[in-house]
Amino acid sequence: MSPTVEQGTLYVISAPSGAGKTSLVAAMLGNDNKLGVSISHTTRPMREGEQDGVNYHFVSRDEFEAMIARGEFLEHADVFGNYYGTSHIWVRETLAGGQDVILEIDWQGAEQVRRLMPECVSIFIVPPSAATLRERLTGRGTDAPDVVERRLGEAREECQHALEFDFLVVNDDFDVALADLLAIVRSQRVRIGVQQDRHSELLTQLSQ
Amino acid sequence: MSPTVEQGTLYVISAPSGAGKTSLVAAMLGNDNKLGVSISHTTRPMREGEQDGVNYHFVSRDEFEAMIARGEFLEHADVFGNYYGTSHIWVRETLAGGQDVILEIDWQGAEQVRRLMPECVSIFIVPPSAATLRERLTGRGTDAPDVVERRLGEAREECQHALEFDFLVVNDDFDVALADLLAIVRSQRVRIGVQQDRHSELLTQLSQ
Repeated sequence: MSPTVEQGTLYVISAPSGAGKTSLVAAMLGNDNKLGVSISHTTRPMREGEQDGVNYHFVSRDEFEAMIARGEFLEHADVFGNYYGTSHIWVRETLAGGQDVILEIDWQGAEQVRRLMPECVSIFIVPPSAATLRERLTGRGTDAPDVVERRLGEAREECQHALEFDFLVVNDDFDVALADLLAIVRSQRVRIGVQQDRHSELLTQLSQ
Repeated sequence: MSPTVEQGTLYVISAPSGAGKTSLVAAMLGNDNKLGVSISHTTRPMREGEQDGVNYHFVSRDEFEAMIARGEFLEHADVFGNYYGTSHIWVRETLAGGQDVILEIDWQGAEQVRRLMPECVSIFIVPPSAATLRERLTGRGTDAPDVVERRLGEAREECQHALEFDFLVVNDDFDVALADLLAIVRSQRVRIGVQQDRHSELLTQLSQ
């Protein structure tokens, strides 16, 4: 009997901006080579230093809308006139190859993914206090008040959906939050459903 | 508002003998001071070096049977004429105090506990191969063949119930298995249900 190829786990990670999600996810990827991050498709213009296929897959609005029409997105959103989306095919193929995949998306994307892939594991990251969040979003005080207010409003809306997630990680101390995230990933790999496939032969041997 | 006292998590850990469960649980306790282990009641005679209330609560058969009649056990079993059981009251009180509790019991005890406390987290530990199990159970070859055969039969029966557990940890490398177990415990502490109580004030602040 050839061993079953292990199926990877899909992680959905959301957070209000200012929670430190991007740095935490980067550190997770650096600590665990079985973790990969999805590269989104977007219609926003490429910025200096960005590379197509590395930071994003940059496509035109027409191409993006054709992909929507063909049902190729696991989730997508229109953010201030630019589309962002995650390719369903890419995610399924990567998971089938045994790789875990992290999607960094907002609560609305998370909702779409849960509907299509209810077996995903979702994690919400929050800052340790509302004051910290306000401080981080206010920045150096150089942004226009309405921009700051919009950011705060978005952060609040995001946090209103925290309880829809499977796990909540508080990013007070970066290393503690990172250890929490890595523990979630490690423990998911020894869930009985995953192990049943991985060790089916061992379990049969031990039982007879 | 006074903060809610955190509720601990109940862990049920089972394994065939020879899987290394006892050493792994001891190492877990040494690594995590929020983890405690339940001290069972038993009717078997105290052995040299054992202490009442430390290794077991040693009670008479009459006392044990009165406790059964009063419904005081979360689980109990008659093992070769000696009773063993876990006090339901002690477990509930310890969890209510915010401490996590580990029960080292067999699959039958695990079944009883799941019925009464379905929120428990159950973990099954296995050796890396049937050959390793046989080696460890055969010991130094000084035991009578029927004793060895009984042990092997019990181990097989135990393993037939592995899939009833939430997690499966393979004890091939002790440190890897220990890290898996500690990751399970750590990740359980950031589950949304637990965190919702612990950080209710923070979540409210962040959302309004």
